[in-house]
Amino acid sequence: MGVGPGDPGNLTLRAINTLTSADLVIAPCSSPEIEGRAESIIRQALPEITCHRLVFDMSPGETGTEARVRGARQAANDLHRSLSEGRTVAFITLGDPNIFSTFALVAKEVSKLSPKTEIKTIPGIMAFQEVASLGGINLLDETEKLFLVTAREGITDVEDALRSTNAAIVIYKGGRNLVQIVETLEKANRLKGAVIGEMLGLDGESLEPLDAVTARKASYLATVIAPPLRIIEPPVD
Amino acid sequence: MGVGPGDPGNLTLRAINTLTSADLVIAPCSSPEIEGRAESIIRQALPEITCHRLVFDMSPGETGTEARVRGARQAANDLHRSLSEGRTVAFITLGDPNIFSTFALVAKEVSKLSPKTEIKTIPGIMAFQEVASLGGINLLDETEKLFLVTAREGITDVEDALRSTNAAIVIYKGGRNLVQIVETLEKANRLKGAVIGEMLGLDGESLEPLDAVTARKASYLATVIAPPLRIIEPPVD
Repeated sequence: MGVGPGDPGNLTLRAINTLTSADLVIAPCSSPEIEGRAESIIRQALPEITCHRLVFDMSPGETGTEARVRGARQAANDLHRSLSEGRTVAFITLGDPNIFSTFALVAKEVSKLSPKTEIKTIPGIMAFQEVASLGGINLLDETEKLFLVTAREGITDVEDALRSTNAAIVIYKGGRNLVQIVETLEKANRLKGAVIGEMLGLDGESLEPLDAVTARKASYLATVIAPPLRIIEPPVD
Repeated sequence: MGVGPGDPGNLTLRAINTLTSADLVIAPCSSPEIEGRAESIIRQALPEITCHRLVFDMSPGETGTEARVRGARQAANDLHRSLSEGRTVAFITLGDPNIFSTFALVAKEVSKLSPKTEIKTIPGIMAFQEVASLGGINLLDETEKLFLVTAREGITDVEDALRSTNAAIVIYKGGRNLVQIVETLEKANRLKGAVIGEMLGLDGESLEPLDAVTARKASYLATVIAPPLRIIEPPVD
């Protein structure tokens, strides 16, 4: 289930009801001693819930994919006994479980290992919605469109997206290519109104206009938004 | 604030806390006698809340824009007294308030009329997230991307989006162009796995594979999703 991007207030009633009725709550983490971000949200909102930590390699890139698949297979193995005993297992994940989530990999491996297990997802608020809200950005009107792209492996998808002036551009996974992203948006006359949000719901949460950012890098989970170009106001009598 | 697409369980804690503490809750509707969809969600989740209905012309198209702007101006006028008395007004809207919402127009007119009014939005689960969840569709992995486009005025944006095989395509406002959408997806070899969701959270809620749909039209609020083409599985040892 998705637990939103940071603020525990973004938890939905469905997520809360499922968490409180589940037999086992699984929280992904990068090390067994360190509380993951999803777990931190649950601790704040529902301190009575005990999360069981499962370690995942979160390394980005091609090599990271292999490590993540191995991690998901291990997680499916760990969960096999609980699932085969008919217990309900809730897996918490930042944002939405169907958008760039470790959950998809785990679900796939669980399906292979325990084909009879019923798997459902519960939507969660995504980081870009929180950034738009914090930044006072109306993302889409009328027939505008939204392109959600990544910049982990470069900025080709950002450049392609910028060909549409009436598209809101959301960029995920672009932290290490931030300088290029800023330059590309500036060249396309799309820096105005663009923002970057980081560390949502954590100490050090920040939301800044992209043209004021002096840092040359941002964290992996930074979210960049460039709103659509809006030159023509809707006609009004 | 966004109240999600239909199921009251998609309400967030923030939305609920704001609704229960607001001095006045405004629900948009198309006629004063008819409960709007956002109001229906609140009635189910929080029956103790009384919604004050404001009528909006919801006609689509260019002419609709003018009517909607006039409606928003009227709404801002209606709210002016409450706001100038320092009362907290909560405006409920389906989905997310920053994505295709009447709220943006109302906020703009309120800002003009009452520049000192502080305006904030609260994110809500969007229809496509619910459709992906109900349909068991993992929308995005790794460096895939998502294109959210409309088909109200034609299918040009759908055709453009289909040039990217690794993009999940979400189509809003395409009800009356459904036949063309199906044909276009089929031509691009993207009909497999595509679904259409309608009337979420209402009697008559439906989720169907798009290639099984025989109707020639769908409602204005229908959501179509075509997942990314995934031919190559991630490498696994």
